[in-house]
Amino acid sequence: MKILAFGEVMMRLTPPHYKLIEQTDTLDLAFNGSGVNMLSSLAHFGYDTTILTTLPANQVGRAAAGTVRKLGIKDELIGYRGDHIGLYFLEMGFGNRPAEVTYLNRLASSFGESTLSDYDLDQAVASADIIHICGIALMLAEGTREVAFALAEKAHKAGKFVCFDFNYRPSLNKENGHEWVKDQFHRMLPNCDLVIGGIRDLTELIDLPVPANLTDEVEILRAVSQVFSEKFDVAYFAGTIRGQVGEQRGIRGFLRHQAEFFVSRPFAVEIYDRIGTGDAYAAGILAGIIEKWTVEKTVDFATSNGVLTHTTFGDSPLIRKEIVEAFSRGELGDVIR
Amino acid sequence: MKILAFGEVMMRLTPPHYKLIEQTDTLDLAFNGSGVNMLSSLAHFGYDTTILTTLPANQVGRAAAGTVRKLGIKDELIGYRGDHIGLYFLEMGFGNRPAEVTYLNRLASSFGESTLSDYDLDQAVASADIIHICGIALMLAEGTREVAFALAEKAHKAGKFVCFDFNYRPSLNKENGHEWVKDQFHRMLPNCDLVIGGIRDLTELIDLPVPANLTDEVEILRAVSQVFSEKFDVAYFAGTIRGQVGEQRGIRGFLRHQAEFFVSRPFAVEIYDRIGTGDAYAAGILAGIIEKWTVEKTVDFATSNGVLTHTTFGDSPLIRKEIVEAFSRGELGDVIR
Amino acid sequence: MKILAFGEVMMRLTPPHYKLIEQTDTLDLAFNGSGVNMLSSLAHFGYDTTILTTLPANQVGRAAAGTVRKLGIKDELIGYRGDHIGLYFLEMGFGNRPAEVTYLNRLASSFGESTLSDYDLDQAVASADIIHICGIALMLAEGTREVAFALAEKAHKAGKFVCFDFNYRPSLNKENGHEWVKDQFHRMLPNCDLVIGGIRDLTELIDLPVPANLTDEVEILRAVSQVFSEKFDVAYFAGTIRGQVGEQRGIRGFLRHQAEFFVSRPFAVEIYDRIGTGDAYAAGILAGIIEKWTVEKTVDFATSNGVLTHTTFGDSPLIRKEIVEAFSRGELGDVIR
Amino acid sequence: MKILAFGEVMMRLTPPHYKLIEQTDTLDLAFNGSGVNMLSSLAHFGYDTTILTTLPANQVGRAAAGTVRKLGIKDELIGYRGDHIGLYFLEMGFGNRPAEVTYLNRLASSFGESTLSDYDLDQAVASADIIHICGIALMLAEGTREVAFALAEKAHKAGKFVCFDFNYRPSLNKENGHEWVKDQFHRMLPNCDLVIGGIRDLTELIDLPVPANLTDEVEILRAVSQVFSEKFDVAYFAGTIRGQVGEQRGIRGFLRHQAEFFVSRPFAVEIYDRIGTGDAYAAGILAGIIEKWTVEKTVDFATSNGVLTHTTFGDSPLIRKEIVEAFSRGELGDVIR
Amino acid sequence: MKILAFGEVMMRLTPPHYKLIEQTDTLDLAFNGSGVNMLSSLAHFGYDTTILTTLPANQVGRAAAGTVRKLGIKDELIGYRGDHIGLYFLEMGFGNRPAEVTYLNRLASSFGESTLSDYDLDQAVASADIIHICGIALMLAEGTREVAFALAEKAHKAGKFVCFDFNYRPSLNKENGHEWVKDQFHRMLPNCDLVIGGIRDLTELIDLPVPANLTDEVEILRAVSQVFSEKFDVAYFAGTIRGQVGEQRGIRGFLRHQAEFFVSRPFAVEIYDRIGTGDAYAAGILAGIIEKWTVEKTVDFATSNGVLTHTTFGDSPLIRKEIVEAFSRGELGDVIR
Amino acid sequence: MKILAFGEVMMRLTPPHYKLIEQTDTLDLAFNGSGVNMLSSLAHFGYDTTILTTLPANQVGRAAAGTVRKLGIKDELIGYRGDHIGLYFLEMGFGNRPAEVTYLNRLASSFGESTLSDYDLDQAVASADIIHICGIALMLAEGTREVAFALAEKAHKAGKFVCFDFNYRPSLNKENGHEWVKDQFHRMLPNCDLVIGGIRDLTELIDLPVPANLTDEVEILRAVSQVFSEKFDVAYFAGTIRGQVGEQRGIRGFLRHQAEFFVSRPFAVEIYDRIGTGDAYAAGILAGIIEKWTVEKTVDFATSNGVLTHTTFGDSPLIRKEIVEAFSRGELGDVIR
Repeated sequence: MKILAFGEVMMRLTPPHYKLIEQTDTLDLAFNGSGVNMLSSLAHFGYDTTILTTLPANQVGRAAAGTVRKLGIKDELIGYRGDHIGLYFLEMGFGNRPAEVTYLNRLASSFGESTLSDYDLDQAVASADIIHICGIALMLAEGTREVAFALAEKAHKAGKFVCFDFNYRPSLNKENGHEWVKDQFHRMLPNCDLVIGGIRDLTELIDLPVPANLTDEVEILRAVSQVFSEKFDVAYFAGTIRGQVGEQRGIRGFLRHQAEFFVSRPFAVEIYDRIGTGDAYAAGILAGIIEKWTVEKTVDFATSNGVLTHTTFGDSPLIRKEIVEAFSRGELGDVIR
Repeated sequence: MKILAFGEVMMRLTPPHYKLIEQTDTLDLAFNGSGVNMLSSLAHFGYDTTILTTLPANQVGRAAAGTVRKLGIKDELIGYRGDHIGLYFLEMGFGNRPAEVTYLNRLASSFGESTLSDYDLDQAVASADIIHICGIALMLAEGTREVAFALAEKAHKAGKFVCFDFNYRPSLNKENGHEWVKDQFHRMLPNCDLVIGGIRDLTELIDLPVPANLTDEVEILRAVSQVFSEKFDVAYFAGTIRGQVGEQRGIRGFLRHQAEFFVSRPFAVEIYDRIGTGDAYAAGILAGIIEKWTVEKTVDFATSNGVLTHTTFGDSPLIRKEIVEAFSRGELGDVIR
Repeated sequence: MKILAFGEVMMRLTPPHYKLIEQTDTLDLAFNGSGVNMLSSLAHFGYDTTILTTLPANQVGRAAAGTVRKLGIKDELIGYRGDHIGLYFLEMGFGNRPAEVTYLNRLASSFGESTLSDYDLDQAVASADIIHICGIALMLAEGTREVAFALAEKAHKAGKFVCFDFNYRPSLNKENGHEWVKDQFHRMLPNCDLVIGGIRDLTELIDLPVPANLTDEVEILRAVSQVFSEKFDVAYFAGTIRGQVGEQRGIRGFLRHQAEFFVSRPFAVEIYDRIGTGDAYAAGILAGIIEKWTVEKTVDFATSNGVLTHTTFGDSPLIRKEIVEAFSRGELGDVIR
Repeated sequence: MKILAFGEVMMRLTPPHYKLIEQTDTLDLAFNGSGVNMLSSLAHFGYDTTILTTLPANQVGRAAAGTVRKLGIKDELIGYRGDHIGLYFLEMGFGNRPAEVTYLNRLASSFGESTLSDYDLDQAVASADIIHICGIALMLAEGTREVAFALAEKAHKAGKFVCFDFNYRPSLNKENGHEWVKDQFHRMLPNCDLVIGGIRDLTELIDLPVPANLTDEVEILRAVSQVFSEKFDVAYFAGTIRGQVGEQRGIRGFLRHQAEFFVSRPFAVEIYDRIGTGDAYAAGILAGIIEKWTVEKTVDFATSNGVLTHTTFGDSPLIRKEIVEAFSRGELGDVIR
Repeated sequence: MKILAFGEVMMRLTPPHYKLIEQTDTLDLAFNGSGVNMLSSLAHFGYDTTILTTLPANQVGRAAAGTVRKLGIKDELIGYRGDHIGLYFLEMGFGNRPAEVTYLNRLASSFGESTLSDYDLDQAVASADIIHICGIALMLAEGTREVAFALAEKAHKAGKFVCFDFNYRPSLNKENGHEWVKDQFHRMLPNCDLVIGGIRDLTELIDLPVPANLTDEVEILRAVSQVFSEKFDVAYFAGTIRGQVGEQRGIRGFLRHQAEFFVSRPFAVEIYDRIGTGDAYAAGILAGIIEKWTVEKTVDFATSNGVLTHTTFGDSPLIRKEIVEAFSRGELGDVIR
Repeated sequence: MKILAFGEVMMRLTPPHYKLIEQTDTLDLAFNGSGVNMLSSLAHFGYDTTILTTLPANQVGRAAAGTVRKLGIKDELIGYRGDHIGLYFLEMGFGNRPAEVTYLNRLASSFGESTLSDYDLDQAVASADIIHICGIALMLAEGTREVAFALAEKAHKAGKFVCFDFNYRPSLNKENGHEWVKDQFHRMLPNCDLVIGGIRDLTELIDLPVPANLTDEVEILRAVSQVFSEKFDVAYFAGTIRGQVGEQRGIRGFLRHQAEFFVSRPFAVEIYDRIGTGDAYAAGILAGIIEKWTVEKTVDFATSNGVLTHTTFGDSPLIRKEIVEAFSRGELGDVIR
């Protein structure tokens, strides 16, 4: 089973020891991105993964490709042009203090400036069974949007399994009106088999109504996701619900598959590095679909993957399948020997 | 609004990764001190700050001044003489294990040996609206004590707002009797507009009586602080009360302003680096006074600043005003983007 | 009071910042091992300690001996031969994610290949009052087993206090049958004065029966340990019981001394580095025996030492006796100055 | 004597241990730039320095300003807007291998997008005695070019000492024709009192002819610089000549002051970090002009500063005046105590 | 053009800052080996490379494979078994002090214990145009020797270009007699098209006679290599000659191709990290053969690659083809921008 | 052969990567000192060594003792009192830039304040065959001076071999007149068997005349050292002469033994870390005396040890005897395997 993702590779710069930028003279360097993260997780589960992206044609772009390969992702469809990569600083949070992300210029990146002519989409579609498209690529720039649409349409036509992640970032869409945004999703969704998102994506971005008689968070989700699934003929819709477990932060995973709808028990989360946990969840869902697990097992696995990814450094999930499964069954102790 | 603080700049050496000194061959190097910490916080809130101190006339002293400037504090009133700086090792705590501070020689430092003739106090007083004096400077050595007294008196006479922090360290006063210690505070306090301290400073250092009928911690503080405020004509008295919030450590801030007295709700604290959190609280109080906030808002802001400073590396608080305010309103999530 | 331990010195390689091996290009290097850990703790309590072991005759072996000395352990009985040292990677855990230990070849090490002819056991026995033998040495290889037996027998005959720690690792005994394993312990135990272990060592390794009428964990331990103590004439049997304290992990220590049996209250543990905490407990028990403390004080001290060792980096316990005692009395605050 | 420089602050990311980008997961973080470098050196000589620039209005921009202050440069004229900072990776060279600089996007930076309306040039001119303008700012973008011209003209009119550094980067001017480039310099030069450059700037950028009868490098420089000085009424022209000293790399400094022309003896250079050494030379020349040293002393001092700056990490020169002077007199041994 | 190499992947542990093992508590972690190094260089030149090897089936083996991929080498033919990897410490040299390599157990590694049944040699041969076999694999253990022979024979029969590197390590062959060693090479060489080695390999390992009338190093090499080439029908024989260039260390490359024989001029070398430079040379020779360069260009390129690899950290060469070429033409300055 | 040294243990703080103090937020931590350095070298040669000193009674003092043990030096005669340790920053030099040492307070250290009553000199003398006294201890403070005199006298009387190193630091003796300084040496020297120093110690500190007819450096040394040896009945006098070897720094060792006088050939030195190289030389001389080598072999060995110690990080020499010997015979290549 081969999975291809179209998305941006970004550079992440992280001060060590929970320091702020102004406190440090060293940084941790990594390359990641929503698509990379999801593929990283799938590669660590043992699947064959490939990223479709554009990197700068310099030492930084080549180093980024090296990291991608190290994560277990194939780099054969990466193109090289320009001289810039989207980058951000992550000041890691601790306890009461949230992590803080500071983006530097993202639009002028090699990826942000890439267009249809930079990609051989037919080859890309032919090479994979599952095609994943990140919502950030859809909304980043005109060029990447056209690639996202064309890729989704070609893949859908070719009968490939298409996965889309809303991943909506208001900060990247300050100048686009609500209707315009909605139109983009309306164009994308009919091509999709699996969509990753949350209740707000459905109600606020594409204006699905909340049934007036419902107040319970889960019941609303159950109802709205059914409408969503039917309206756009999307076989799977999955995501997470954040909340509290006693005094701790907590998370529940959910998955709608056609008429089925399942929400996991709450899992307490302890956060070391919050970024990329949604991508870990998405990868877990895809694993369940590939393996044809039940929705229950799929959601428990995906949620476990998300929970464990809160505890690892870096955005890209790295946990092996057997560890995720053991965790989901409550079988892990303090030390694995 | 310009704030000047008189106090020691110290060198802090911290083993990384929660290691003990004997485990490490690298150290984190920083320069801080109670006055520096308070000014750092105020500078990060956007105020104009200056430190009045003495540093060694060598590469270490110059590096210390560089750090001071980097924190946003002006170094124009720093003098240079001698060859030593007070320094300490901090072995960071974790969970059940407390942090451990090991001081090396502190008295032989350039600051510890500085005297009235090293400072132009008239210029210092003239240059600022608020003058902060650290109780450590008062009790460190004969020379710094005379500077502290002279500065407080000149500032008070000049109508400047004088702030004093008890910061009493028994280890620095092993050879001074109780009455002698009390006399120093009796000489200092009448010059002060804001005093930072706790109930024990009032009852144990300057012997204010605890009303016999009171047992509740807050009620005692309310009563004794009123006596204190009236006796020494101190407009503001502020500090924190440590305790538990469920299974977690907790903290409450309080502020007496004339007849008003307010104690915040308990805030749970998770500790990464405990040192400097009291200075963060003091800075928050000063910010509230500068901004003419209500006592409630002032205390919530100051306590929030203290709570957040438990989560950052290093002694010197670095959190921006808008983040402290958002935290005090409960508006921060897991990630700020 | 002189303590000698026979056991392996291993090299531990730890990625920093809770990273996994694949994420790091730097490692923390340390040398430790069950015997080294116990002696390290005793040395930090102020006792005279010596390790009996074999190290490679190269730069790595010499560096390992340097670390041993730095911990406060005498290296005069260390022999040098061969070129390999047992080593393992530790990927530190965080929150929900367990630590993971990956051993590289352990049998081909200088220690694993050492035999009776590499040690002067008479000299070793004569030089110490207490002889500690690690169960890993007993089960690692034929050569180290013969040394373990000979050392125990000689020490016992010479009237020395013999301490044995089960430390059973199934992964090192995949090819040995249950009866064979049991035979080894049956040969070792009659020479011992103190045995460190848990209920499963007694019931699963040496087949002591669980009284049919008992279900409470502590009552079973009380009963089985009495049988154990009598059957093998072992004066002391000690260990820990893991469990939960509210939402946190917890630990209780126990000690049987002849007819006496004591179990401590549960201590909540927060884990920074889990490895070596059992050795810290054992060292605490030995300290109590040396100091002739009551079983209650001994167990509280040993458990406190174990709890605190969960919070320090590295396997080898480093906490001073006065800190352990203050912790056991609940006297430690956030910062020791 | 107050010196103001207009120029870009850049972020420099350097892999440690002479590694390449692809080899490292940590980076050294610094902020510098040609103007910052020159001011850093002057600040370390004891002069009052200020940078005029624009930084991003985020955590990165604030950290950059902190570094600027730490170097001893005043940040009061820094403006904040946008979200990007010019940045580059430096892979340090070793022996036969050159250092390699990889720029990421530089034009979209807060500085690159700044325009006349972002600066109060009258205030800037009024606040300083010497105004330095970096040629990179002149050629970077339309906005910064207009600022550079306006600043030079205002300063010149106000009778301030204007310093200009060619610092020509072909890579930033790929699309500008030779004549256009020349026109910019023709507009700038008449406002300048000191120009920093080399023979190729005079002959290739502004087309001064090389006298046909001359072949010796120094004689050509002597002749052409005289024409240059007279043509544009530039009082001082200074720069360096690179070459070999035996088997080592070497450098000579030169200075034309009106009719005087002096070239230093060759200094052997050993390179640790090559970047910023030209700025160190320029700072040394300015120091000599401020101190009214002879051209000989000025050039020896400036060259010494350049030579020593080859040996320090980072772009920004940090050597104290007394060390530079001792070096220029050959008085430094192996260790300064 | 696809290149496959059969060889060991080793773990290298390097103390930072030129420290000795006993001085450090951190290490640099890398994975390399003679085959990996050669492929790394070829991958950085843009060729398609694959390693054929066996790694441990654990976190260390998976991390090693990640590094291999990051270097640009395909890992599809890597097998996983066992739990050990060959490893060594490198204490880097400086000036007069040589680097020192300390090997830990190498024979018990997953590779050292691998045998014919662990590899699909037919697939391996079919997948590549050039097959490289490292002499260490030939001499390490019986299993790897049989693989080396079988691979060479199959590749030769299949008409593939076979490359062999003597890489003779006396320390791995202490127990094998001279004749036995010679027999192995006699069996290997007839299958080879390119052999990497030095004069001593020819005269001491396989006993080719030195013509009595020759004393000049180069003339001896010319003569003996001709005999070698003819005797074993080896089309190419290449290697380096170390010596002095003035006061510096120096190196010359040579290549015999049939009747042609060329020795480069001496290149001065400055050493940062000596290991892997021979592999860089070999990769350069292969590049020349692939590109059908003249022997002169090939040797200059290969020597340049070797010289530059003395200046980079780590064993695996990383220099791009255009940089090597520019260096061989003397076109590199101090900084590449 | 047991060697005891009386001297100060200092803390050294070194910025990494050749950075200056102001550039770094991390430091390398080490403990050393002239006596520690000499003993470290002797311990690495295989001799039994013990330091006699006083350390602070806190975590820093205990860590210092751990380092001493790690170096292979016995710590049994170390006393603990007070809270301060002498410390200095070392900014490492590079090429043309010298290293720079910045001392913080040294007099107020536990050692600086130690007196006769802190040491059991009879036990110390009885425990060793060779007693080494550092000139810094002699001149540091009244207390350490009295210990130095008493130790020398007791050792001399007991027939032990007494070694003294001038190690004169003008900065520690600014207030003592020339005659007073000379008197101290006059009191010390008659007790000594080996003195380490240079020509200036003899001519400037104790006023031995330079024969008027001599101008050659070596001839002067030969003549003056003979007078010195006879006047004070000192059997051995040894030291080094610094100079140039071609374009490189160089060093020659010398040794006078009674009537014999030998000066080595010049050795080129490449400097990584200059500090402690004199102590390495002294240790080499002691090794030669212990082993009863010829003066020629002794000086070549000692000079080689000094030369190699220029190439290692840190003050304390760490090179093994066989490596020093191989270097002195010119047998070391680029890599030791």
